[in-house]
Amino acid sequence: MYILVTNDDGIEAPALLPLKQALDQIAETIVFAPDHNWSASGHPKTMHKPLRADPVTLPDGSQALSSSGAPPDCVALALLGIIERRPDLIVSGINLGSNLGYDVFYSGTVAAAVEGVINGIPAIAFSLDSFEAVDYTGPASFAARLAQHVADHGLPADMFLNVNFPAVPWEEVKGVTITRLGRRVYRDELVSRVDPRGRPYYWIGGKPPGGVPDGGTDIWAVANGYVSITPVHLDMTAYHFREDLRRWNIQLR
Amino acid sequence: MYILVTNDDGIEAPALLPLKQALDQIAETIVFAPDHNWSASGHPKTMHKPLRADPVTLPDGSQALSSSGAPPDCVALALLGIIERRPDLIVSGINLGSNLGYDVFYSGTVAAAVEGVINGIPAIAFSLDSFEAVDYTGPASFAARLAQHVADHGLPADMFLNVNFPAVPWEEVKGVTITRLGRRVYRDELVSRVDPRGRPYYWIGGKPPGGVPDGGTDIWAVANGYVSITPVHLDMTAYHFREDLRRWNIQLR
Repeated sequence: MYILVTNDDGIEAPALLPLKQALDQIAETIVFAPDHNWSASGHPKTMHKPLRADPVTLPDGSQALSSSGAPPDCVALALLGIIERRPDLIVSGINLGSNLGYDVFYSGTVAAAVEGVINGIPAIAFSLDSFEAVDYTGPASFAARLAQHVADHGLPADMFLNVNFPAVPWEEVKGVTITRLGRRVYRDELVSRVDPRGRPYYWIGGKPPGGVPDGGTDIWAVANGYVSITPVHLDMTAYHFREDLRRWNIQLR
Repeated sequence: MYILVTNDDGIEAPALLPLKQALDQIAETIVFAPDHNWSASGHPKTMHKPLRADPVTLPDGSQALSSSGAPPDCVALALLGIIERRPDLIVSGINLGSNLGYDVFYSGTVAAAVEGVINGIPAIAFSLDSFEAVDYTGPASFAARLAQHVADHGLPADMFLNVNFPAVPWEEVKGVTITRLGRRVYRDELVSRVDPRGRPYYWIGGKPPGGVPDGGTDIWAVANGYVSITPVHLDMTAYHFREDLRRWNIQLR
């Protein structure tokens, strides 16, 4: 098995190397990650400017690649030929901060996984519900075990796994649950300021997002000390609503 | 009805004003669009830098707002209080270039609609399967008619409409079809160059995307001269696959 490892916190993020080292136990790996943090960057495809893809040496002496592009750019560049062969699996993470519910639309960690799936390669996104660096040994070895499951069972086309770890020490994690995406509640606030020339400018500020902890959701699981695994598919068509729309009898002219 | 109009081609894009003027016939409108083009920008939330939100005058003399942020930032800023009241509908477009199948993950036009839906406001994304400026009168008046349908019938929570116009003169459009997202096929190619200092850099180049024109898909519809309307929902959970995953019996430690 050949695994492409990436993230959205950047090549120097503390969770990247433990993840790579755990995956090294089950596969050959190549790290190709952004050269800086891309949190909440969504899913860009960088076409309006050129990208770098430079060799870097990780703290354990292993060779990796780093790009000026976003997480999905790293995956795209890799698959377009920057790395020598096609990976069997893409693993993205471990992100500092959870990616639950609607977060999947903003998350660069998830975007890297989505880019893999669009290109026909199974993918797993891993995030941790904490912004503080912790001991990643437990989550990383779990990630490797789940990657092995995916290698053994396969994933249907058009699908990836979105995994979130709770913000508790690994020995206190209660178990693994298979979940659905929950309802994120954002608590953004507008911060208005005035620049030295008298012109207004704005920050999107506020508190970290909350969520509705309904049973069965990723939000409930992570808030209650469980690892959540949500299978996510890329076909967002609202199939059932097509019949309603047909009844609207929308005229062209 | 109060409609927030935005796009990802920027405030000066030729399709924005015709869309706004058509919507003026059925509602009060406010235009709040990026100050430059954000094609293929995905769904960022700009939190690491401040944003502008400046008044601008459109070519017809109407007042609008323009932001240094991405399309979803325009929607977020508007809803956080930059505009005086909460819109009833968000209309994004008309994009130059179609947004079919997997394009919904990259599209800034779609991201603006998604940002509306995440905030509980129904939304419609409009795109045109051509990169050339055309007569937007027909598509714009269709957009207003569809907006009126949405006002009359409502949309379920968590859902928006993704509309694509074919690249033919309006009088040659064959009809309206309710579709599902098709399978986009990207034809990106790596373009490798060397900078004046001898360092390699890369472009994501290649041809515009194709697609599999299966019956019932947006890709088929637009390629065959129909307006496609795909209902898209934001819950990407692969519900049926949860049982398969449970059978994998994934152990925590």
